[in-house]
Amino acid sequence: MTGAPTRALPRTVVGVDIGGTKTCAAVIDDTGVVLARSESGTPGPDGRKALLHNVVERINEVIRVTGAEPLAVGVGAAGVIDSRAGVVVSSTDVLKGWAGTPVAAELRRATGLPTTVDNDVHAHALGEVWRGAAKGVDQVLYVAVGTGVGASWVHRGWVRHGARNAAGHLGHVPAPDASGLPCVCGGEGHLEAIAAGPAICRAVTRRTGAPFARLQDVVRRALDGPGPARDELLRGAQALGSVVGGAVNLLDPDMVVIGGGVVGAGDIWWRPMIDALRRELLPATRDVAVVPSSLGADAALVGAARLAWRSLDG
Amino acid sequence: MTGAPTRALPRTVVGVDIGGTKTCAAVIDDTGVVLARSESGTPGPDGRKALLHNVVERINEVIRVTGAEPLAVGVGAAGVIDSRAGVVVSSTDVLKGWAGTPVAAELRRATGLPTTVDNDVHAHALGEVWRGAAKGVDQVLYVAVGTGVGASWVHRGWVRHGARNAAGHLGHVPAPDASGLPCVCGGEGHLEAIAAGPAICRAVTRRTGAPFARLQDVVRRALDGPGPARDELLRGAQALGSVVGGAVNLLDPDMVVIGGGVVGAGDIWWRPMIDALRRELLPATRDVAVVPSSLGADAALVGAARLAWRSLDG
Repeated sequence: MTGAPTRALPRTVVGVDIGGTKTCAAVIDDTGVVLARSESGTPGPDGRKALLHNVVERINEVIRVTGAEPLAVGVGAAGVIDSRAGVVVSSTDVLKGWAGTPVAAELRRATGLPTTVDNDVHAHALGEVWRGAAKGVDQVLYVAVGTGVGASWVHRGWVRHGARNAAGHLGHVPAPDASGLPCVCGGEGHLEAIAAGPAICRAVTRRTGAPFARLQDVVRRALDGPGPARDELLRGAQALGSVVGGAVNLLDPDMVVIGGGVVGAGDIWWRPMIDALRRELLPATRDVAVVPSSLGADAALVGAARLAWRSLDG
Repeated sequence: MTGAPTRALPRTVVGVDIGGTKTCAAVIDDTGVVLARSESGTPGPDGRKALLHNVVERINEVIRVTGAEPLAVGVGAAGVIDSRAGVVVSSTDVLKGWAGTPVAAELRRATGLPTTVDNDVHAHALGEVWRGAAKGVDQVLYVAVGTGVGASWVHRGWVRHGARNAAGHLGHVPAPDASGLPCVCGGEGHLEAIAAGPAICRAVTRRTGAPFARLQDVVRRALDGPGPARDELLRGAQALGSVVGGAVNLLDPDMVVIGGGVVGAGDIWWRPMIDALRRELLPATRDVAVVPSSLGADAALVGAARLAWRSLDG
């Protein structure tokens, strides 16, 4: 037989990142390289059916565009996820009707591919441990500080999910200087209430009377010089550093990786955060490495792909 | 051949608990029952040689008294312990010259028995998981609150030691209401500086001008009615509860076991501690069980015996 030789397709999976504001699916190879993406807003208020429909559209689009023949799907999704069952245990109201969704089963049905699901912060952490800042590191505490504050403990390449898949709620740990601040969880004095992006914006708005909706605006003002914006950015940075330092004394990781939108504030946030973190450390934990996330916006996608590859190994 | 039938000796090991104030060795069977003990003060200021000599005397005495033929030795000892090597990594000055001591090798040489060593808080936790309040529970956070505050995370029956054997330093996590209080580690604002027995005694002494050397005296005064003793006991209890609640949100254990001398204060301490702990919990972690240690003073001995039995399995 003659004709054009068949080009062997690279072995790939689809990684999916379902966040509160956007949803992205990507074709990713077995070395963690992102070959193509399909992204859209997350239809959070529209309910479970719309959320799943949008995910399937993203997956189908990225497969169509690339002509890939992916072997499996991995998903990192907002909410508390039972990763063994592939079901959303609970979720905030940002994703309406998300709690209880059998994500893995629904996507398996729609795509015909084996599907694995985990929480998006855990997926981000897995990405960093597989192909990012913590590549090959044994015991890693990943901290995400953005709209909320979350964490993931990865030991020997595996996420530790806790007894109810609820491990990693670092945002709901008491923080120095946060006493009395109301937290989204209904409690008060928690880290998220002082260190998350919206918390910092709210504090600056409260003190200046001017509306600060985005952290970038706070950062710009803070860079201009002393004042409420710089104060509150510093307060959030120090609270985060303090609590993470305490978590290092408790868990004793080899490395801490810090990611999420707030890290984008740069040195004016990173330096006081690191100083506060180091002040908490015992002699026994003092040599812990603390580094920023290196995969950025792709981390959860890459970690989701890792989940997919793992499901094929098993 | 005739004569008295040989009575089969029970299979036993020796468990050893080396604390800051006392040292105890016990003969323990394979169900965790303590058959006999030999106890003495710990010669803390006298240096490594005296410490080890005292341990060997305790072991030999309890073997002599019982006529046991133990198969192995397990040790729970104060300090950061490299349990794989059986060496003390670091220690406070209470045990002089203890840092660097190759405990396992020295005791193996002196007794001729295989010897395993771990930190005493970890041993206590193992005891509770093997034969105590957390028997058979999968993911357990053990908290010891006495002269200091420590913790141990036991997952599937195994202690998680962290990257440098330093995991469990819950006493050196920032605590609400402790800002500015100096900690023994050189830092400030840590849980141990507000919740440990001596910290509570110091606070009451400071406020009353009268010397309170023992927590029992604080508790007695607190039971008499409102005043500085009751305030400070409450403050310590609430700080502990708060920080442990935060740790539950981070780690998501099935159960928290709380032991150590301060728990002996009873309900006047336990109730506000539990209330503060539960106030921190997320809906997702709310059903965590929180119980007092059930093995009391024997817990570290029993856990040390567990270490010894395990070394024989392997």
